Amino acid sequence: MKPVNVGILGLGTVGGGTANVLMRNAEEIERRAGRQIQVSMASVRSVSKPRICDTSHIELTEDPFDIVNHPDIDIVVELIGGDTLARELVLQAIANGKHVVTANKALIAVHGNEIFAAAEKRGVVVAFEAAVAGGIAIIKAIREGLAGNRIQWLAGIINGTSNFILTEMRDKGRGFSDVLQEAQALGYAEADPTFDVEGIDAAHKLTILCSIAFGVPLHFEKAVTEGISSITPTDVSYAGRLGYRIKHLGITRRTDAGIELRVHPTLIPERRLIANVDGVMNAVLVVGDAVGPTLHYGAGAGAEPTASAVVADLVDVTRALTTDPDNRVPHLAFQTSSINDSIRFLAMDEVKTAYYLRMCVSNRPGVLAEITRILGDRGISIKAIEQMEASAAEANVTVILLTDTCLEKDMNEALASIENLPTSQGAVIRIRVESLNA
Amino acid sequence: MKPVNVGILGLGTVGGGTANVLMRNAEEIERRAGRQIQVSMASVRSVSKPRICDTSHIELTEDPFDIVNHPDIDIVVELIGGDTLARELVLQAIANGKHVVTANKALIAVHGNEIFAAAEKRGVVVAFEAAVAGGIAIIKAIREGLAGNRIQWLAGIINGTSNFILTEMRDKGRGFSDVLQEAQALGYAEADPTFDVEGIDAAHKLTILCSIAFGVPLHFEKAVTEGISSITPTDVSYAGRLGYRIKHLGITRRTDAGIELRVHPTLIPERRLIANVDGVMNAVLVVGDAVGPTLHYGAGAGAEPTASAVVADLVDVTRALTTDPDNRVPHLAFQTSSINDSIRFLAMDEVKTAYYLRMCVSNRPGVLAEITRILGDRGISIKAIEQMEASAAEANVTVILLTDTCLEKDMNEALASIENLPTSQGAVIRIRVESLNA
Repeated sequence: MKPVNVGILGLGTVGGGTANVLMRNAEEIERRAGRQIQVSMASVRSVSKPRICDTSHIELTEDPFDIVNHPDIDIVVELIGGDTLARELVLQAIANGKHVVTANKALIAVHGNEIFAAAEKRGVVVAFEAAVAGGIAIIKAIREGLAGNRIQWLAGIINGTSNFILTEMRDKGRGFSDVLQEAQALGYAEADPTFDVEGIDAAHKLTILCSIAFGVPLHFEKAVTEGISSITPTDVSYAGRLGYRIKHLGITRRTDAGIELRVHPTLIPERRLIANVDGVMNAVLVVGDAVGPTLHYGAGAGAEPTASAVVADLVDVTRALTTDPDNRVPHLAFQTSSINDSIRFLAMDEVKTAYYLRMCVSNRPGVLAEITRILGDRGISIKAIEQMEASAAEANVTVILLTDTCLEKDMNEALASIENLPTSQGAVIRIRVESLNA
Repeated sequence: MKPVNVGILGLGTVGGGTANVLMRNAEEIERRAGRQIQVSMASVRSVSKPRICDTSHIELTEDPFDIVNHPDIDIVVELIGGDTLARELVLQAIANGKHVVTANKALIAVHGNEIFAAAEKRGVVVAFEAAVAGGIAIIKAIREGLAGNRIQWLAGIINGTSNFILTEMRDKGRGFSDVLQEAQALGYAEADPTFDVEGIDAAHKLTILCSIAFGVPLHFEKAVTEGISSITPTDVSYAGRLGYRIKHLGITRRTDAGIELRVHPTLIPERRLIANVDGVMNAVLVVGDAVGPTLHYGAGAGAEPTASAVVADLVDVTRALTTDPDNRVPHLAFQTSSINDSIRFLAMDEVKTAYYLRMCVSNRPGVLAEITRILGDRGISIKAIEQMEASAAEANVTVILLTDTCLEKDMNEALASIENLPTSQGAVIRIRVESLNA
């Protein structure tokens, strides 16, 4: 059979990695796909810039529209990032009847509904395995591997930068800003780290996972995000003392009241496998009603791990080139006609979790009694309370608490009351706790 | 679209679980697959026996050939196990143009080459996700999710019974036979546990993983297997002291000399995620050249986890009903014409691993020197050597050693020499060590 012609938009880290993997493993990929998959064109910002891949057999252009409009290109691989030009290019490629592979989580999370509708109308596939958790084939695992399950919830470490920072803070007792600078020097964090450390990147990925797990449209605007910049070495260390690790988790869960979609720092019992996923690695824990808990672990970023997912999509799409559009795997796992947009997403106030609290209070009798009464009045039970070492001479002591699950609304009210106590010194530090029991 | 009619051969634990999952999640499965998937027939040993599933809408028969020969059945699900009658039934179903889904690892490992050839000739699919690691979609992950990679090696805990026994031995310091009896009482082990504890079941699964990873035919007869019945609480505890866990691993690796295909007890550094996979859970670590290490974790057995994989296959096959046979995912991951049967499988003698050794020797000067000389003479270097506590009065002491990697042939020779020393008391206990570094 004639080779499949691929045009890559953006020949940077992931684009170059994809070209390298396709060339290095060409023989093995052809043995799997049944056809040769070759990069015939690529768009770059400057054709004269040096590349990490051999471009001698690739036609380079500085205009990405040359590729999406080129009659010989079968599949367009979009790796330029962002959601403005990328959206235009992808929609144009679709209009031209080309299949698309993308690693762009922002594009899919924000414009996916529009893009998939256009693709289905035109009978083409938009594949996006590389958009979530890099080399882990988590889209395929949920969409196909767990197709028999009613997915109950999933929780993931889906941002390597945040996980690297939290791992270093724990292993070396270092502070957030200190580790962030190192991560930037190592190339694990961007010059502007907001997307990663504030949970926006994770929320993009989680939005996609939520849709394919529950059969709802992409609703990035419903995601609740909280970053890790407020996490201190003190809390990391106290959490460890209580038998927990702090991880930046994306969690989505289907409850009777609605869907939870949230990214925030979370205490996890240290005996859970996912609590032991360290450094830049990613992992997603998916719980289905039939299968129970499953964990999917691997590299969440980097040139070749991401290329691994891009090439897997290229092989899938190569097969789809000749298949009946009505019998393909649906973009969002469920048939478009049965995507349900009537399910409510919960505000954070409506979510139930357990909490780790750290507070500074006056060192005198009766203080703990007041705090526990305020919590008790709102039905919040206490699993553990510990007054950290303080000499009798000190005016204030630190108290840490673990609560059982309660409504976040009740916790917010309780914390406001606690902070209003005359014995209370400053704001209460609050980190959510998830048992991740399945 | 008209519903897909499924006939199940064997309505026991997995068959009943499959019927239950298909009924309970019927709406969600139809939303994914685009068609209703219904169990219309099932074969059982006795129609009068009570069932774990509702059979009011299922036509029961005591003759499985009624199903494979029935014109209305689209997909046959083979869950009777064994490789004699199952083979006949599957080949007959294929001859009748029916697609097949099976959870039968022995059938695929031993007769897969014949079955896939028949299926391809007839243009039907034989799906076998449930045959390896139960609910973990590891076949799909390797065959499709990692299709861009040159797989380098994989290692798996793929037998829940063995893993349960080793976990209990470690957690409670109990002996093998003691825990085996408990496992039998809990239903985790068969009355005849040979298949599980001697590694035959794991070797069936590993044979399948080896083929889809490396593009070679199924060669179950080349698998080297060693069981866990000789593992003692002493070695479990000494391994722990050295920072290792003992797991019953299936390992397959592509080397320049040939393919390793082996199942045996293995020491793994305790900081590896896979070393922390406990109880009846399964996990497979797959290393690809582009993606690096990936871990796939979940329930490896049980009614509904296995049903989860069976139903995922049913959804895939439902899509395949209308696709072009030439563009489907190949049975063994690689196109049939490019399966390579010229690659050699290595004998255990030719395999390189590191070793844990435990020996009992006379408690006198110079003994350790003799042992280290024998190892050194064969180029085997020692990473750690420890003489276990023994009072001066005792005539013998226990010595434990960790070696670097060496050829098993050299180790066998060294052990024979050590056992021949006049100071040596009995056989040397030898357990292989794998760093699982990727």
